[in-house]
Amino acid sequence: MTLAPSPLLLGRAARPLCAIAALWALLRGCGAQDGGLENIVTEKKAEESHRRDSADLLVFISLLTLTILTIWLFKHRRARFLHETGLAMIYGLLVGVILRYGVHIPRDISNVTLSCQVNSSPGTLLVNVSGRYYEYTLKGEISASEVHEVRDNEMLRKVTFDPELFFNILLPPIIFHAGYSLKRRHFFRNIGSILAYAFLGTVISCFVIGLLMYGFVMLMQQVGQLDGDFFFTDCLFFGAIVSATDPVTVLAIFTELQVDVDLYALLFGESVLNDAVAVVLSSSIVAYQPTGDNSHTFEGMAVLKSFGMFLGVFSGSFALGVATGIVTALVTKFTKLRDFPLLETALFFLMSWSTFLLAEACGFTGVVAVLFGGMTQAHYTYNNLSPESKDRTKQLFELLNFLAENFIFSYMGLTLFTFQNHVFNPTFIVGAFLAVFLGRAANIYPLSLLLNLGRRNQIRSNFQHMMMFAGLRGAMTFALSIRDTATYARQMMFSTTLLVVFLTVWLCGGGTMPMLSFLRIRVGVDSDQDSVTAVDGTERRTTKQESAWLFRHWYNFDSNYLKPILTHSGPPLTTTLPSWCGPLARCLTSPQAYENEGQLQDDDWDMMADGNGSLAYGDVTVSADEAGIHTVSAAHARHPAGSPAGLLDGDTLTRGTQLVMPVGDSEPTLVLSPPGHREPHRHRE
Amino acid sequence: MTLAPSPLLLGRAARPLCAIAALWALLRGCGAQDGGLENIVTEKKAEESHRRDSADLLVFISLLTLTILTIWLFKHRRARFLHETGLAMIYGLLVGVILRYGVHIPRDISNVTLSCQVNSSPGTLLVNVSGRYYEYTLKGEISASEVHEVRDNEMLRKVTFDPELFFNILLPPIIFHAGYSLKRRHFFRNIGSILAYAFLGTVISCFVIGLLMYGFVMLMQQVGQLDGDFFFTDCLFFGAIVSATDPVTVLAIFTELQVDVDLYALLFGESVLNDAVAVVLSSSIVAYQPTGDNSHTFEGMAVLKSFGMFLGVFSGSFALGVATGIVTALVTKFTKLRDFPLLETALFFLMSWSTFLLAEACGFTGVVAVLFGGMTQAHYTYNNLSPESKDRTKQLFELLNFLAENFIFSYMGLTLFTFQNHVFNPTFIVGAFLAVFLGRAANIYPLSLLLNLGRRNQIRSNFQHMMMFAGLRGAMTFALSIRDTATYARQMMFSTTLLVVFLTVWLCGGGTMPMLSFLRIRVGVDSDQDSVTAVDGTERRTTKQESAWLFRHWYNFDSNYLKPILTHSGPPLTTTLPSWCGPLARCLTSPQAYENEGQLQDDDWDMMADGNGSLAYGDVTVSADEAGIHTVSAAHARHPAGSPAGLLDGDTLTRGTQLVMPVGDSEPTLVLSPPGHREPHRHRE
Repeated sequence: MTLAPSPLLLGRAARPLCAIAALWALLRGCGAQDGGLENIVTEKKAEESHRRDSADLLVFISLLTLTILTIWLFKHRRARFLHETGLAMIYGLLVGVILRYGVHIPRDISNVTLSCQVNSSPGTLLVNVSGRYYEYTLKGEISASEVHEVRDNEMLRKVTFDPELFFNILLPPIIFHAGYSLKRRHFFRNIGSILAYAFLGTVISCFVIGLLMYGFVMLMQQVGQLDGDFFFTDCLFFGAIVSATDPVTVLAIFTELQVDVDLYALLFGESVLNDAVAVVLSSSIVAYQPTGDNSHTFEGMAVLKSFGMFLGVFSGSFALGVATGIVTALVTKFTKLRDFPLLETALFFLMSWSTFLLAEACGFTGVVAVLFGGMTQAHYTYNNLSPESKDRTKQLFELLNFLAENFIFSYMGLTLFTFQNHVFNPTFIVGAFLAVFLGRAANIYPLSLLLNLGRRNQIRSNFQHMMMFAGLRGAMTFALSIRDTATYARQMMFSTTLLVVFLTVWLCGGGTMPMLSFLRIRVGVDSDQDSVTAVDGTERRTTKQESAWLFRHWYNFDSNYLKPILTHSGPPLTTTLPSWCGPLARCLTSPQAYENEGQLQDDDWDMMADGNGSLAYGDVTVSADEAGIHTVSAAHARHPAGSPAGLLDGDTLTRGTQLVMPVGDSEPTLVLSPPGHREPHRHRE
Repeated sequence: MTLAPSPLLLGRAARPLCAIAALWALLRGCGAQDGGLENIVTEKKAEESHRRDSADLLVFISLLTLTILTIWLFKHRRARFLHETGLAMIYGLLVGVILRYGVHIPRDISNVTLSCQVNSSPGTLLVNVSGRYYEYTLKGEISASEVHEVRDNEMLRKVTFDPELFFNILLPPIIFHAGYSLKRRHFFRNIGSILAYAFLGTVISCFVIGLLMYGFVMLMQQVGQLDGDFFFTDCLFFGAIVSATDPVTVLAIFTELQVDVDLYALLFGESVLNDAVAVVLSSSIVAYQPTGDNSHTFEGMAVLKSFGMFLGVFSGSFALGVATGIVTALVTKFTKLRDFPLLETALFFLMSWSTFLLAEACGFTGVVAVLFGGMTQAHYTYNNLSPESKDRTKQLFELLNFLAENFIFSYMGLTLFTFQNHVFNPTFIVGAFLAVFLGRAANIYPLSLLLNLGRRNQIRSNFQHMMMFAGLRGAMTFALSIRDTATYARQMMFSTTLLVVFLTVWLCGGGTMPMLSFLRIRVGVDSDQDSVTAVDGTERRTTKQESAWLFRHWYNFDSNYLKPILTHSGPPLTTTLPSWCGPLARCLTSPQAYENEGQLQDDDWDMMADGNGSLAYGDVTVSADEAGIHTVSAAHARHPAGSPAGLLDGDTLTRGTQLVMPVGDSEPTLVLSPPGHREPHRHRE
């Protein structure tokens, strides 16, 4: 069954039929073979292939297991210089080295490749082998230079997963978790700044990096270092993908040390949203195609079209994400599904997944839809869930996020050595690091200056430096850059992106603790404080005053209309809606809303405030449901685990942290006290 | 881009190279095309294909969502005649009808198929389209009759998933969950009977069905109803796949009504194990290949080889499953991973998954390995987990099980209308139902007779009838039958199997309640009773006495050696191992074991007894860990959810059940009392 590459060209679709008919007759004779034997051989091969796939996947599972055990050791010894994602990369690198240079498993050559040259690339290919038909599905295009490597290096290629895997399987849970675990109160309080950093900032960063890289590419062309095409759109694309920051390492440390909640909210909110912006931005840049032959020149219409596409895709994905979130909220509100936590959790999971699929099926961006879906679920649906489902859903997505994240990072490490078409160009790499640095700076500092003009609660310079420093690149950047590695430019980008991710995760991630103390940023800030003082109503007013009109309007609309419609809480709609909406209002208002009317403001406030403590609603005190059926679930306030979420570790607070330093302004320095001894009435301002 | 089927034959590998070289030169000219345009078209097609895939998956997600909402209504109204799996099938059927007869989405014809006739079927196929290479992966063989349907009915084929999906993605969590949620105490108490039913019984059933079907096939051949080959091995294969019972519906009702625990254990244990037996049996039958030309005659050596393969694969899978379970137990015992529930849960999940992958990579059967892996995890590892991880792991696998099961069942419904090659033969179908009935009878009644000779606690005739009645066929039968539908015989089997599953699930599932009352089977049996009375030690002795020597020996070995080695409980190894093992024993014994030494028997007993209440360790009272760090997690004793696991619904007990009937022997009829009012000291004998 050994098979030399046997190229055979069919030519265009219209013409070759006659030639083929002749061929068929000509070659028919030599095709006679023992079908039964062939069949057995094919089955054996399929089995063999399946076994190898299992073994390959097992390598990754072992890697993740190893990562978990090591990171446990690190946590156990309270070593914070290396986050699990950084560790996963290191293990991936090691295995990559072994696979590349160590192992030489002789693989069955017959299993490798057959070149069949035809005139189209349909989704499904039927191959007629001596009268038996085999079905093949399109995996993707590979560059001509790869063809020989495909044959030679089947094993290395095997551990190269389909890049779409990242976008369709691994990224969605990560992004959904980010949305679902957003600290909504602080997020909304800083919404204006976050939106500015995420939208304006990412676009600025993209163009600054794109322009700088174009300069470097020009330079390389002058020096003759460039072996292929590298257009300005490629540079912009590079700018877009490396503008997606992923400070998971930094945020884990922030949560553990309870760094200032506003800084946390700014950083987390920005990183979550700029992922979405970067995805849509990069696809809009790819879609930039001027009409006519000269396909890489500037053309106003094409730019406008790209811009329109950006707006359309972003708002479409946003709308779909919010819509499915709202549907889930309504379903969970108007059914008594909460009596059956398993059904409820399953529904929640399925609806959240369908957000992604729906967006993809409609041609929008699933990852973006999932982000806003997650935020909507957290803001509305979460309040309708039974206590057990609250636990279950957040634990489920925490686990999925953890596994997906570490898988991606260990795969990244592996890829550095197993990817076949690396193009490492020193000039480009140096240029990229410089551009990434300057792009981040052009995002943070000018915008902070502008924002401070309007903010009561200034973004201080040490916060700005920290945000600058926390511009790590991670899963999203990697997934975007591996998606297409067909051209020379894309290969160079991919190799460079890998290095950018590695260095930022290791250096910036590992340097977070020293940087925190160098910048004298306050740690041990109890995020409960604000919410507790809200009971007397004064702090609440302060909060509202210090926020921009955007937040105030949104907050009023949300708490008067959306919350009462979508959840059991808030003021009854009968009191907030105009009187002519009476019947509808009565129909939509939950019976609980009337009961809660007296304490509605506190309820509402609590709702905004939940999600404190640990990032994933750590210490929500759960109320019994309306029928009084459910026992109150003792919320697991402790999430001393290794995800970006949830690190309110009592032990850490009392024993681990010596990093308390006085801050520059008039606030009293908080002395860390054991949990349970929190001073509830100390204001932040 | 439209493409007529353009067959083009390459012939044998050795010869055609010369012809091809000439061809290449001949046809090279007409292959020149605009690469850029081609590239864009291909990208568009890939995008289109992805969007369609998303839409297809969305159909299933919507189906599952609908199933969840409807089943909630059913549960809400306490309707028990239809289980969620039966409902999922109905919805699947409806959507299947719509897809088949209602929707005619015009699909891009260019995306369909290209016949490329070559001389082998490698795992990877490179297709050269005008100088660009596309990679295709082997999906599988399709029968010649399907080829035209592939072209005509792309959409219907699209919703036909890769059959291996069931084996590699959907079945493992179901089977693992079955193992992980086994009521181990009652399982081990009835281990002898369960093993007899599962091994002997399945083999008997397989051969009875196989022989009967062979009779029917002979008959069909006489009448001329047979349009293709149908060998005796095919009949045996059919016997093996329909011998896998799946009484998920019945067990759900059993749990809800608290039917006699021994009956539950017999039925559940048998159904779990006979899945494993059926998988290995069917693959052994497929592997039966006599040497020489006459490949379907009887040959002693081939039979022996098949038998040896059965033993080898089964014991290999068993060993691997147990081994990974033990490794996980040791890891969780000797690390303090329990301080980080997320890490612990992730490790548990990864290790359990690796059981499957490892077995597949070694050529054993992953599904079987996963079953024994799950049992080992439940028996040992579970005891080492932190309270939160106990919750998390069981909830996670409960959810996965629920989703996978309902996906399979709704897919089954869909398949009845969308599968392209149904062969419905009335004779075969009638014969199959008869054979399935007789095969089950030949399993249950003779074996029960034999077992009753040795059992103190007799399997009464009403229990036997119930076991006979509960012979539903489900996910495993379906997965085995869809795995290969290439030949005429396999297609007929697949169509018939679908009907068998439908009817048994709907009729036997729906008839469980009437049958329970008809057979006068006791409900409302509190499985806690035995364990509670165990405190005074008398019941414990009784339990041991009533069990066979197999159980006694296993029990002693397990509690004296395995438990202490693998968990924190049990007597210290220093007391059970011979003195020359001293250092090793001290090293392996957990510090807690010494502390617990005084109360070790109770501990041990509790361990055996946990997993009562709800099937998934519903009311395990969790102890604080050794450092006293963890708050005691209030165990969620209520699992009123819709999985086969966990239905100890207090409401059901007090309100839902009027099904209390006096049983034939001397036992006092239990009057159902609200939970919390259980009479602890009533013995079952």
